Amino acid sequence: MNTSIYTEIPGGVCAAEGFKAYGIHAGMRKNAAKLDLAMIVADNVCNAAGVFTRNKVFAAPVGVTRAHLADGKAQAVICNSGNANACTPDGYETANATCKALAEALNIKENNVIVASTGVIGVSLNTEPIMKGIPVLLEKLEATAEGSDKAALAIMTTDTKKKEFSFSFECGGKTVKLGGICKGSGMIHPNMGTMLCFLTTDCAIASDVLNTALHAAIDDTFNMVTVDGDTSTNDTVTILASGKAGNDEITAAEGEAYEAFAGALKLLCYKLATSIAADGEGATKLLICNVTGARNTEDARVLAKSVIASSLVKAAMFGADANWGRVICALGYSGVDFDTSKVDISFSSAKGTLPVCKNGGSFEFSEEFAKEVLTEKTVEINCEMNDGDASAQAYGCDLSYEYVRINGDYRS
Amino acid sequence: MNTSIYTEIPGGVCAAEGFKAYGIHAGMRKNAAKLDLAMIVADNVCNAAGVFTRNKVFAAPVGVTRAHLADGKAQAVICNSGNANACTPDGYETANATCKALAEALNIKENNVIVASTGVIGVSLNTEPIMKGIPVLLEKLEATAEGSDKAALAIMTTDTKKKEFSFSFECGGKTVKLGGICKGSGMIHPNMGTMLCFLTTDCAIASDVLNTALHAAIDDTFNMVTVDGDTSTNDTVTILASGKAGNDEITAAEGEAYEAFAGALKLLCYKLATSIAADGEGATKLLICNVTGARNTEDARVLAKSVIASSLVKAAMFGADANWGRVICALGYSGVDFDTSKVDISFSSAKGTLPVCKNGGSFEFSEEFAKEVLTEKTVEINCEMNDGDASAQAYGCDLSYEYVRINGDYRS
Repeated sequence: MNTSIYTEIPGGVCAAEGFKAYGIHAGMRKNAAKLDLAMIVADNVCNAAGVFTRNKVFAAPVGVTRAHLADGKAQAVICNSGNANACTPDGYETANATCKALAEALNIKENNVIVASTGVIGVSLNTEPIMKGIPVLLEKLEATAEGSDKAALAIMTTDTKKKEFSFSFECGGKTVKLGGICKGSGMIHPNMGTMLCFLTTDCAIASDVLNTALHAAIDDTFNMVTVDGDTSTNDTVTILASGKAGNDEITAAEGEAYEAFAGALKLLCYKLATSIAADGEGATKLLICNVTGARNTEDARVLAKSVIASSLVKAAMFGADANWGRVICALGYSGVDFDTSKVDISFSSAKGTLPVCKNGGSFEFSEEFAKEVLTEKTVEINCEMNDGDASAQAYGCDLSYEYVRINGDYRS
Repeated sequence: MNTSIYTEIPGGVCAAEGFKAYGIHAGMRKNAAKLDLAMIVADNVCNAAGVFTRNKVFAAPVGVTRAHLADGKAQAVICNSGNANACTPDGYETANATCKALAEALNIKENNVIVASTGVIGVSLNTEPIMKGIPVLLEKLEATAEGSDKAALAIMTTDTKKKEFSFSFECGGKTVKLGGICKGSGMIHPNMGTMLCFLTTDCAIASDVLNTALHAAIDDTFNMVTVDGDTSTNDTVTILASGKAGNDEITAAEGEAYEAFAGALKLLCYKLATSIAADGEGATKLLICNVTGARNTEDARVLAKSVIASSLVKAAMFGADANWGRVICALGYSGVDFDTSKVDISFSSAKGTLPVCKNGGSFEFSEEFAKEVLTEKTVEINCEMNDGDASAQAYGCDLSYEYVRINGDYRS
């Protein structure tokens, strides 16, 4: 992908024209310093699209938002942290009450509200803090980087870092802006913590085309962190397109303008997804698994995910241990058919590249240089299958003591 | 299963008539106190069967032993710990050299030797300690509980406890004995550490029937710890049947005698498999997931394994946290179709049963009693699907700080 045509800019979800955002401590969480209610509001009804968890057990806000996005339109996002509003008898009631309250306050249609939640499962959501928080948030909404920052902070759970990016690019002779915030963690499997992501753009683009671009971007990014199918009850990615950039509306998933937009969306999702991977619970480093020379893209994806999801690989990377046997073992149980005697494996980082396995067997290396390469903050695990020309990249993090501490008593 | 007809007896792999065993420190490992070479030898050629890893990448001894068991006959087992003899250019050479040396020393056919290895992948196996160890072991072989103990100790890697059981039972009017040793750990996924298991019996039973009984026993036991397909490069289970009990040879997988034998084999495998689960690396407790009321057995197995393999469930159990949301989440992403509104979940242990979820939603419980139930050494997670009459049980352990320490620098 040619990323030189995209310029990173500040602003997050407020970078694009026509959006305001903010986040407050509404009282969902006990800690008054932790923001727990976020809002994003567009000046006008936007074209919109969403992608949701494939978990058989999904939270009420996922059901409500999926229904609200069926018409490809939305204008506002409201999201609380601290409670997932999942697996409770009154989940739909509270999710709908939240949408109704915000719609009335904004004088918009209820089905133009996107609602999302993240936090503990199985405890009824107390809507009182949300009801009290809505008018407060409406007062505070800002079309500024500060507004986006506050929203990004309010959706965090065990995240240690705010996740927010935005870009501008030329599209159909106009400057188009695109930004987003997300949260996600729980990364022992790179897939089990709730992932929420809210994107905004001022691009003029038809809802169905927006939907196509969003799915394509997610397949190569978030789905390579949050392994397909193995998603939490609440995972949600949505995008609102205000159309305020003034470009000719993109009405088909082809052509120069579409490619420029789809590329920007993929780049934004890549930045957000890798920031989730790097901020896995207790993680000390970002792991990227590059599979090349696979027979086809699906094989490449499955192989890359199998390596990145291996707890033994993750623990070895935490210990800066060049244990490539665990890498080839993870390739071996992935279910993909390949010729083990063709596989080459190397580790790489800012310190250089360390070949460790050639033709499926050991390749002598310096333990000293291995430690140097593997103690970097970003480590790439490269698997060349020498069996075709398909490739894929998967994202994860190492497995540390901290992960266990964080997850041993999450509810407390 | 009616287990009252089986009597636990001492002796391990030497409990049955016609077997000797021992284990020594041959020098594969630096620590002279750690036994690293095990041997089991039968007085006569036995009917035999084996089940092996399904990993695409399998170690040389797996390839050699699979070929040697093709004729359903074997007489001796040799197994080293400290090196997996996997992914090295000379793996088959060294595995074959080991078999040849033992066969010559015993004056038996080379293809009647079972060879196995466990330890680090990708480092060439030095056969010198094995060659020197064979005559030493042959001198020391004993048809005693002590001999079995030593062999059980010699196959251990990160195991903290020796795993050894034996039973006697009546079969065709004769007393038949059956015993085994195994090793296995690395249990963050309940599936990624090498599992080795060597079984012996004096039952007279045809090779193909023995093979059928072994596969059936493994499906419900080891495969519910070592998730199918997600196996290490070296996983191996073998059984030798000396025929010395004097029963009429069992020649079909049906009838009273077969059922008695198959039941004993399943019970033995259950005891060995749960001892592996309980001794997961860094584990503080054994977890058993009981899925009942599923639509069919395959669904029940997949659901039970999904729960037992969830790192978030495992970390919650370490923290004695009744976080049933993670249990229903793991059921949800298992890929099995079910009605979430019918699911009931409870936790149970020696302290009692704690219902936590009814009809897919929260069920009020005492946090105090929850701590009491969940701090026991064996905790059962019960998922009643209320959707059929199939059931399955899967075995695992909790996820502790220790796991990360053990796996962070395994090669050192």
